Amino acid sequence: MQPISSPTLLLNQSVCKANLHRMVEKARAHNLVLKPHMKTHQSKTVGEWIKEEGVNAVTVSSIEMAQYFVEAGWKDITIAFPANPNKSHALNELAAQVDITILINSKTVANSLSESLSHPVKAYIEIDTGADRTGIPSENTEQINDLISAIQSTKQLEWTGFYSHPGHSYQARSKAEISKVHQSVLKQAQALRERFSFLSNTFEICIGDTPCCSIAESFTGIDAISPGNFIFYDLMQTQIGSCEVADIAVVMACPIVDRYPKRNEVAIHGGAIHFSKEKLREGNITHYGQLVTPSDDHWQLPHNPAYLVSLSQEHGIVRFDPKDMKHYKIGDTVYIAPVHSCLTANLMEHYKLAQGKIIQQMRKTR
Amino acid sequence: MQPISSPTLLLNQSVCKANLHRMVEKARAHNLVLKPHMKTHQSKTVGEWIKEEGVNAVTVSSIEMAQYFVEAGWKDITIAFPANPNKSHALNELAAQVDITILINSKTVANSLSESLSHPVKAYIEIDTGADRTGIPSENTEQINDLISAIQSTKQLEWTGFYSHPGHSYQARSKAEISKVHQSVLKQAQALRERFSFLSNTFEICIGDTPCCSIAESFTGIDAISPGNFIFYDLMQTQIGSCEVADIAVVMACPIVDRYPKRNEVAIHGGAIHFSKEKLREGNITHYGQLVTPSDDHWQLPHNPAYLVSLSQEHGIVRFDPKDMKHYKIGDTVYIAPVHSCLTANLMEHYKLAQGKIIQQMRKTR
Repeated sequence: MQPISSPTLLLNQSVCKANLHRMVEKARAHNLVLKPHMKTHQSKTVGEWIKEEGVNAVTVSSIEMAQYFVEAGWKDITIAFPANPNKSHALNELAAQVDITILINSKTVANSLSESLSHPVKAYIEIDTGADRTGIPSENTEQINDLISAIQSTKQLEWTGFYSHPGHSYQARSKAEISKVHQSVLKQAQALRERFSFLSNTFEICIGDTPCCSIAESFTGIDAISPGNFIFYDLMQTQIGSCEVADIAVVMACPIVDRYPKRNEVAIHGGAIHFSKEKLREGNITHYGQLVTPSDDHWQLPHNPAYLVSLSQEHGIVRFDPKDMKHYKIGDTVYIAPVHSCLTANLMEHYKLAQGKIIQQMRKTR
Repeated sequence: MQPISSPTLLLNQSVCKANLHRMVEKARAHNLVLKPHMKTHQSKTVGEWIKEEGVNAVTVSSIEMAQYFVEAGWKDITIAFPANPNKSHALNELAAQVDITILINSKTVANSLSESLSHPVKAYIEIDTGADRTGIPSENTEQINDLISAIQSTKQLEWTGFYSHPGHSYQARSKAEISKVHQSVLKQAQALRERFSFLSNTFEICIGDTPCCSIAESFTGIDAISPGNFIFYDLMQTQIGSCEVADIAVVMACPIVDRYPKRNEVAIHGGAIHFSKEKLREGNITHYGQLVTPSDDHWQLPHNPAYLVSLSQEHGIVRFDPKDMKHYKIGDTVYIAPVHSCLTANLMEHYKLAQGKIIQQMRKTR
C-alpha cells in the first residue's frame, strides 16, 4: 500500500462482509427480520452489500439518513429515534415515497403528528428495557395501553409493535453479562406479548443492539432485530464480548510525524476530529485506540500492545512497549483500531478499500 | 427565534467579536503579534472578523486548513503541526503562493523536506514546555542546537524561532494554576533566549494556548501568541479559569423529543455526532454540556443547573432539577453550552447567527 499522508479510514471488505453474512444467517436461523441500522456505516455502497444478502428493510437514526437511503433505493425504513413533531413536513415527504416506521413514545407526539401527516406511517412504541435512555418502561402497562389507543385513533399512524434498544448491554464485559441483559429483554418482550395479547392486531417486537444480537442463541418472542455496529465492530465491542479483534473491519491508517524514544511514544496525524473522544479503559490504561497489524485478511493485536494514549484536535500520541519503539520511524504508517467505529466512521466520511477504491458516505448537513 | 427542528449551533456574533477584540487589544498592549489559531472556528467569515481587527497572520492545524485560508486571502500562515514529509508536494504549492511557517522537530524531517521543497518555507522548532505531547523539551540544548544547524544548512528552510503549545494549562482549575504554567513557560522562553543569544539571527518565540493568553498580564520574552479557542470559549475553559460563562459564543440549540418526569430528564436530538464525546466533571456530575439561557446579549447558567448527562450517536439526555422539569415540553428548544467548542464546531460544520444567517466552515475532506 502506498504511504499514507493523512489519516485514512481503511475498510476491510472481506471482514465486513463476513460480519454481515453471519448476522444475516443468524436472523434467518431464528426466523427474524433483519433491519440493520445504517448509522454505523452511513454508506450507499455498504448498503449495496447488505442488499445483496437479501435484506429488504433498514433502520436509520434521523430523517436525513432516511432520505439518503431512500435515494439509494430502500423502500422500508425505520427511523429509530423519538419522532420529532417539528419535522413532520420532511417525514410526510418520505412517507409519500416509501414505507416509513417511526418511534412514538407519547400521546403528545401521536396527536401532533396525526394532524400534520397526509400519508400513512407505521409506528413502533419504544420500550425502555433497562437502558434508562428513551422509551416507556416495559412494566408501565397502562401508559403503553393508552398510547396504543391514541395511535390507533389517529388517521395516518398505524401501530405496528414495540421497539427497544437495550443499550445497557454496553456495560457488559463478558458473554455471560451480555446474556444476562438479553434474557431480561426476552422476559420483558414475553411479558409484553402476554399483556397485549387481548388486542386483535398482531404486533411485532424489534430489538436492536449489537452485543445481544451477536452472541444470543435464542430470540423467543422477537420478530425483528436492528443492530448496527456489528457491520464493523470495534475495540469497545471486543471488550464487551460481542466479537474478536479479527472481526474489526475498520482501522485508521495514520502517518507518524514525530518520535519521542525517551517516552516510548510517537506523534501521529490522527486526533479527536478523526477518532472521536470515545475512551476505553483496559487495566490501568485509558486509551482512544489500539495498534493493530495486518495478518492474512484481517487485523490483529501485536505481541506487545501499543495504545493511542492521548488526542488533541489533530495530534495523536501512540505509546509503545520499549522493545518495539525502534521499529517505528517518522513517515511510517501505523494502523489504529478505533474504540467506537460508529463515531470514527461518522467523522471520517469515507472509506478506503484494500485496492485503493474510495467508498463515500452520506453528506452530513448539520 | 423560530422553533428548532434539528440540532443547530448558534453563534453569538457580539460575544465572539468581544472575545476577539479583547485578545487583539491584549496582544497590542504587550507588543505581541497575534496569529490566531483558526482550527476552533474553521470559517472564512470568522476570518473576516479577525482581519477587520487588523490581524495579518493566522495559525492552522493542517495543510488542508492552510489551503482554505489561502483561498480566503490570508498571506501569512503557520501550520502548527509537526511537518509531515509525506505532504511536501502540497506544502510546496502553498509556499509558492504565500508565506508559510511550519514546525520542524527533527533533522530527519528537515533533511527530507529540504530535498523536496522548491520554495522558501519558514520553520519554527517546536518546544515542549511541559505538555508532554510534541516538540523538543526546552532543556535539550544540544538537540535544539543541532536542529537549528540542520535547518539552516538546508536550501529552502529558514529557521525563524521557537513555538510552543503549553497544553498542560488545560489541567489548571484556577487563574492561579494557569499563571503557574505561564510563569514556567516564560522562564523557559527566557532560558532559550539566553542560551541561543550567541546566534547572529534574531529569532522569535511564539506561544499558543487559550488559558495562558487569556489571563496572563506579562509576556516578557514572547514575540507572538497563537491561541485559538478564545474566539468561542466553552465550559472547559470556564472551569480552567480562562473565561466566564458569559464569554461563551457558541451554544447548541436542540429540540426536546421526549420527556421522563420520574427521572427529571428529557431526551433531545443532539448526540455525540453533534457535541463530541468530550466530558467534564463538576463535583459528582460528569457531563457533555450544560443548559444555558439567553440574557441580554449573552448566555448564562440557569438558577438550577441542568446537564447533558448522556450521549448516544444522535440522542442526548438532559437532567433537570425536579423543580424545573415542568417547564420543559416536547417540541421546546433547549440551549446547551458545549464542553469543548473546537470539537463541537468541527462536527457541526456551520453556524447560525441570531438573525438567522448561516456561516459556513471549510469542507472537511477526510
